[in-house]
Formats: sequence, C-alpha cells, structure tokens
Amino acid sequence: MRKLVLSLALIGMTLIASAQDIQLPKPQLENKMTVMEALQNRHSSREYSEKQITDSELSTVLWASCGINRPESGKLTVPSAINAQDILVYVIRQDGAYLYQPKENILKKICSKDLRTLVAGRQAFAATAPVSLVLVSNHTKFGKVQNAAERLGVIDAGYVSQNICLACAALGLNTVPRMTMDTEGLRKELGLDTNYDIIINSQVGYPKASEKC
Amino acid sequence: MRKLVLSLALIGMTLIASAQDIQLPKPQLENKMTVMEALQNRHSSREYSEKQITDSELSTVLWASCGINRPESGKLTVPSAINAQDILVYVIRQDGAYLYQPKENILKKICSKDLRTLVAGRQAFAATAPVSLVLVSNHTKFGKVQNAAERLGVIDAGYVSQNICLACAALGLNTVPRMTMDTEGLRKELGLDTNYDIIINSQVGYPKASEKC
Repeated sequence: MRKLVLSLALIGMTLIASAQDIQLPKPQLENKMTVMEALQNRHSSREYSEKQITDSELSTVLWASCGINRPESGKLTVPSAINAQDILVYVIRQDGAYLYQPKENILKKICSKDLRTLVAGRQAFAATAPVSLVLVSNHTKFGKVQNAAERLGVIDAGYVSQNICLACAALGLNTVPRMTMDTEGLRKELGLDTNYDIIINSQVGYPKASEKC
Repeated sequence: MRKLVLSLALIGMTLIASAQDIQLPKPQLENKMTVMEALQNRHSSREYSEKQITDSELSTVLWASCGINRPESGKLTVPSAINAQDILVYVIRQDGAYLYQPKENILKKICSKDLRTLVAGRQAFAATAPVSLVLVSNHTKFGKVQNAAERLGVIDAGYVSQNICLACAALGLNTVPRMTMDTEGLRKELGLDTNYDIIINSQVGYPKASEKC
C-alpha cells in the first residue's frame, strides 16, 4: 500500500512537472513567402509591439531554427558539425524560460522567472520583445573533437540564427540577433554548467503599429 | 608623347586585369520555392554531376550568401557582428579562383589554378563538385573588438553558409558545408595573411542523374 501511494505520488509529481510544459501546435509550413523574398526582406529590427506572438508562430520559428526536417533520420533544418546537433534553443518569455524539444515539439519549462532583462544585458530595448530565443551549444555532443568545440558550436549557432531571421521575415515578425547578454546570470538561472556555451540570442515580436516594414 | 604611351599602357593593363574578371548576370530572385519548402528540403549531399552550374545559378547562390539586399544602405542578406560585413566568398572552379564582389556582382580573378583539391583536403569527393565556395572572415573589419574577432567571424560565416544551403535547396543544387580543407595551402594561393580566418567551404553542383532528390 505504501508502495502504491509512493508510486501515485511520483506519477502526480511527473504530471505536475509536465503540466508546466507547453505542447506547441504544428509549424505553419504552408507559409507562402519564397526564399528569395525572405532574403530580400531580412533586416534587423529593434522595435516590437507589446502584442504576444502566437504559439503557432513560435512553433514555426522554432521548427525553422533547428527542427527535424527528416523524421526518419532525425536530421535537422540546419547542418551541424559532425552531426552533433549541439544547439539548444531556450525560449525566454514573461511567463518563464523553456527549452525547445524538437522531437516532441514541446517547450519544457526550466524556470518560472522572466529572464528577459538578463537576455537584454546592457541593451534595454531587447527586454521589450515578447520572446527572446537564446542559442546554446552543448559541448558534450562533440565527443572526440572537444578541442574544436567552441568553433564548431559557434558556427552551428550561426546556421540556426539565420533560420530564425528568415522565418521571421516569412511571418512578418521583427527580430535581431545579438551576442550581448548577461551570460553568467543566464547560466545560473538556466542551470547550465561550463560544458554549455551560451552564444547568441534573438528577440522576436510583431512590428510596432506605426512602423513601416 | 611618352606620358600618353604610359597612360595607354596603364589603361591596357587595367583592361587586361579586368578582362579576367567575370560580370555575373542578375540573381534569379523570381525563384518560387518557399522558405518552408527549402527548410524541408535542406540536406547535405556529397555527390555531384559533372555538369557545370550556370553563371545565373552561381549569381543567385552568391547573392543569397551575403549579397546586398538594401542598395540604399549597402546592407546584406545576413546580419553581421557590429555590421562589420567581414565575410568574403571565394569561388573555386577548374578555371581558377575568384573573389565575389557583391556591389558590382562580379567575380574578381585571384588565381588561374584549379584549387579544388586544396579545398577538398582529405575528403577527395569534394574536388568533384564544379564549384566550391570558401568563406573567409576579414578580421581587420572588427576594429576595436579584435579580441572577439574569431568568435564574431565564425558565427558570421554560419549565417552565410546557411544561406548557401537554402539557395541550393531552392535551385535544386546539391551542397554540403565542410570545415575540412588545406587551409594553409589556400592561404598561400589566395594571398591571405593571418588577418584572414579561412573558416568553412561548401561544394555546389547538380545532383547526379541517378540520384533521388
């Protein structure tokens, strides 16, 4: 009986934990903007409306960033050095910080605090975007090529960051990639040890109503 | 009279030099593949037909890589750290090595040798592609942030390299990004001192006729 109670308690805890996670809707793959149009439209924008982006838009940007484009092999929209798939995408919003899990298309809750000011660092404008995406390279994925891990992780982050730029262009969202942030503050709050290189972040939000696109 | 002869001789030398350069046609911005289709199609391919890619296709891939998308400001299809615009794209073909010059949309001849085996390094397959693109960061562009130049240049190369992947997906061309190459051999042949970081290369070619895409 005690075992059963314990088991039920554990199941309950698991349910509570997963209840904080967010199942994202499918990405909007039917979006009609062409590659060449998105490349013509791509630009960095530092002003954002207060309007929240939808979970459907967020799902699309995250899938584009480094989602799975070949479910049979688990391969991604981006190449990665030695197929390490080392880049993690953290979603930083007012309601907390989440880790994007491409296979399940969920946001796994990491922390309940609003970490947007840590992401902004000394550039306060960045905290006004409803969402920031923080790209982190997991160096443990590089195995025998640890000596090149920083360089491999940084270039891998560049691929993912460009996909964020182009997905935002396709969806009509404003974005800017920035290396400025309170890296050590984020490391502590996200629970990342020094095997994880916190590389770059992007703000994502609607243009302000007054803005000419 | 001596002055006139000298002037004519100098003009002649300039003409001869520029006659080796190649004026590219306009990029194919009317290509219809959507961003989401290109992201679904993106994959690395290590087999190439012997068929040459056209100058029009090459122009499109190069414009996508880091071409100018806002002529009024000279800004690019990719973001770059502190707007340094540090990435140079070298085009390596059987007929020589060229530097892509986005503003004029020309290939400036650097060397008449076929450097594809240097780009291939220990991965011989790479020399079978008709074109390799070599991405180089010019660290002199980073001014006061020289101490971060390697990291900034490497991430900037990632942005450019992902655009090459997506442009190839849009055009139905095979490509793969690789960090393997004979870096010191290329440094010598391309005349690049240690202010230039030779980061990554991509092969570009048609799929083999037998290949399922």
